[in-house]
Amino acid sequence: MTVKKIVSHKSLENKIVQEIIDKLNDYFKRSYTEGEKVHNYKTNEELTSLFGFPIQNTSKDFDWLKAVTDTFLQHTINTAHPFFSNQLFANVNDIALLGDMLASATNTSMAVYESAPIAYNMERSVVRLILGRLGYADDPDHGDGIMTPGGSYSNMQAILAARNYLFPETKQSGNLPGLVAFASDLAHYSLGKSANIIGIGEGCVRYVKTDADGTMNADDLKTKIETEKHNGNLPFFLLLTAGTTEFGSFDNIKLLTEIAKQHNIWVHVDGAWGGAVAFSRSKRARLQGIERTDSFSWDAHKVLGIPLYASFFMINKPLGTMEQLFGIGKGDYLFHGDSMDLGKKSLQCARRNDVLKVWLLFKFFGVEVVENTFENLFAKSREFAEIVKSDDRFELVMEPDYLNVCFRVKNPTQLSNVDFLKTIRNNLKEEGFYFVNYTARNEEDCFFRLITNLLITRENFVGFLERIASEVKK
Amino acid sequence: MTVKKIVSHKSLENKIVQEIIDKLNDYFKRSYTEGEKVHNYKTNEELTSLFGFPIQNTSKDFDWLKAVTDTFLQHTINTAHPFFSNQLFANVNDIALLGDMLASATNTSMAVYESAPIAYNMERSVVRLILGRLGYADDPDHGDGIMTPGGSYSNMQAILAARNYLFPETKQSGNLPGLVAFASDLAHYSLGKSANIIGIGEGCVRYVKTDADGTMNADDLKTKIETEKHNGNLPFFLLLTAGTTEFGSFDNIKLLTEIAKQHNIWVHVDGAWGGAVAFSRSKRARLQGIERTDSFSWDAHKVLGIPLYASFFMINKPLGTMEQLFGIGKGDYLFHGDSMDLGKKSLQCARRNDVLKVWLLFKFFGVEVVENTFENLFAKSREFAEIVKSDDRFELVMEPDYLNVCFRVKNPTQLSNVDFLKTIRNNLKEEGFYFVNYTARNEEDCFFRLITNLLITRENFVGFLERIASEVKK
Repeated sequence: MTVKKIVSHKSLENKIVQEIIDKLNDYFKRSYTEGEKVHNYKTNEELTSLFGFPIQNTSKDFDWLKAVTDTFLQHTINTAHPFFSNQLFANVNDIALLGDMLASATNTSMAVYESAPIAYNMERSVVRLILGRLGYADDPDHGDGIMTPGGSYSNMQAILAARNYLFPETKQSGNLPGLVAFASDLAHYSLGKSANIIGIGEGCVRYVKTDADGTMNADDLKTKIETEKHNGNLPFFLLLTAGTTEFGSFDNIKLLTEIAKQHNIWVHVDGAWGGAVAFSRSKRARLQGIERTDSFSWDAHKVLGIPLYASFFMINKPLGTMEQLFGIGKGDYLFHGDSMDLGKKSLQCARRNDVLKVWLLFKFFGVEVVENTFENLFAKSREFAEIVKSDDRFELVMEPDYLNVCFRVKNPTQLSNVDFLKTIRNNLKEEGFYFVNYTARNEEDCFFRLITNLLITRENFVGFLERIASEVKK
Repeated sequence: MTVKKIVSHKSLENKIVQEIIDKLNDYFKRSYTEGEKVHNYKTNEELTSLFGFPIQNTSKDFDWLKAVTDTFLQHTINTAHPFFSNQLFANVNDIALLGDMLASATNTSMAVYESAPIAYNMERSVVRLILGRLGYADDPDHGDGIMTPGGSYSNMQAILAARNYLFPETKQSGNLPGLVAFASDLAHYSLGKSANIIGIGEGCVRYVKTDADGTMNADDLKTKIETEKHNGNLPFFLLLTAGTTEFGSFDNIKLLTEIAKQHNIWVHVDGAWGGAVAFSRSKRARLQGIERTDSFSWDAHKVLGIPLYASFFMINKPLGTMEQLFGIGKGDYLFHGDSMDLGKKSLQCARRNDVLKVWLLFKFFGVEVVENTFENLFAKSREFAEIVKSDDRFELVMEPDYLNVCFRVKNPTQLSNVDFLKTIRNNLKEEGFYFVNYTARNEEDCFFRLITNLLITRENFVGFLERIASEVKK
């Protein structure tokens, strides 16, 4: 292998690419084939002996490449499988995948307009579409947004936006003492990380109680804000969750925003998981009041089968505000004063063209098909909940309001509830047909959380319950 | 188009993928073809009329997809072209590209081991390789690293690491007053952003003078640290640059680290651009002293033709330190106590499998070929500098120590130097054959910055100079 080879694209011309595309087809076909596993479980020692991970100083050839691709595809977790339900995403949509491959191949960076003029326009179009759905776009110069590498990043950008907007001097001179943030005790853990990152400390987050339906208790929020003010602190940020990670619960945006606004608190809606309901006819009301909030995050990669990342951070402020909040003076070698440069809105410098896949998906299928997708998913999660309720071996944790179906398995054994559930789950995981997550709040309360995705059928779900039941009998 | 279609992978089986791969081949071939442009320059209005960016509510078909792919590939910036020199990256290596496509298709997330066991091992292997090159890995339990979405993110994670390591109480209770950071006045602008993000404020950054060769002046650093201490402030973070954005200059790591260590300051080396010399025989000495620094960042996507992102953040501390610095307690639904979970080291939650392409590249070509690549690149930048020096129409700004070749064009016109250079550059950009960046520090001092990449030849470079000269004559 010569040095020149490192940049030659000859291999794209020969049959290696076609062979690898064929391998990918086989991989995807396995998602649709009865009896295929979500993964071929191996211990880490077994995986290590399959791969030879450490990097040696030797050159390889195309036969090695094909072999390693085979091994990789045989042993990776098949996230496109109907029973990859371990995370808040699943499936790979083929149009979005093609878009992502085009983005990799053309590899532009989105800090400045001139290096990615097409991606710039695509991002602006998708941002305007989302702004419209949120009621953030009352005129063409209002509302703004930027893509980020993940929901945690978006939430961090939100709390930073709140601080810099409400206390502009902090951008230059650092945090004021006494800043406090609020979120429900079911909010995503990234808020604690964000509080650490922006230097107010994890200890500044006040976790508000949740009601039985998993949503924030308004009275407790009121009390907590008043207590903080009484103690001389500065409440500045309220994170509401539109679709909690565990239950898919939606905080009451309208009511809670009214409370926060009385105290001049920035309201951010973490819709990373559930924000997709902005595109749903029947569930749109879950976001009622969103038009009065200050910012919003959504991970389009979670529900639509878009490869990571497709995260959006949106603000309900005039154009130009994001540059004020996040831009700094330096970078003259890069920014030459073009008003279309997106880098001043972003906390990143180089930014991958992640919007291409999102834009292609929306343009190809149309917004209406996306709307229909959600109706279909909601109907499935309701159907699965009814199946659980009708089966006395199981217990539904909560009526699903989104795509999470959470249920307990009745424990007839001597094991603690958590050991009982972990044993079932690990047996299932190692067998390879089901890869589903669980939550164990304590030794007593633990349950499965199945995420409804488009590929899973009623029959799959019933089979899953029967498989669990057969473990209980052991 | 039906709802079902949104997750069917049938299109991957039909000839649409092959047709798009063919289009990609044509796109790449254009990089190698004499006389092909780096882009077909269009105004934003022209682009908008070509594409129809706004998203309408209508479904599209495969003919539309093929047509839009054609249009996209015809009008995107060809970053694989020898004269894409607008940013600090260029080329697309085909093995890395294939790796990135596999990552998109298999779409795992790297927060927990169980959902990405292969990627976990690949990341650990590449991290160990880099640690070894830095002298951060004196035993198998020492040194750690994590991939991030970009160099700005890595630098932010570095200053956060410094704060949380030196003042562990800040993680919980927020910043101490008086924290100050140091970097040279040629450091990347992301440090200002990072200071804003972590809540100490942009104003806490003290910019140390640079000498004529673009490196940090040690005496000025000493004076500035002592002044800050005298004023009761807390110097805690020194960012050294290994390869400045503009000149490719390397700060004297050994000398400056010694100064910082006397004051218990965390030393981070921003090697986003130049850190690749860790893999160079002849330039390895530019990192002399690196083994005593505390952290290091490197963007493997910048020099090796790897699609975005391939950024690494490394620390010179025992295993377990990163979890202490960045992890928080929550996330029970996700983290089930597996010591191999990478999410507690990362500030992200979901993380794309960005390591696959890096691991494949190193395994396929071997570390030795990567080393040879750098020697080849360095030789080219030296050669181009000699060409500039021998031509009295141009003036070399600085002897290149890395891959940046910076030169002024002698200005025989009535225009200010900056207007003169901008006019030439914009004419070249709009013509489409050359897409090169410039730096304008003020009306008098402005120059071209050409980044040497593997594709550019001596003939290309001479042609570029002649094209500039023909603009001067106009």
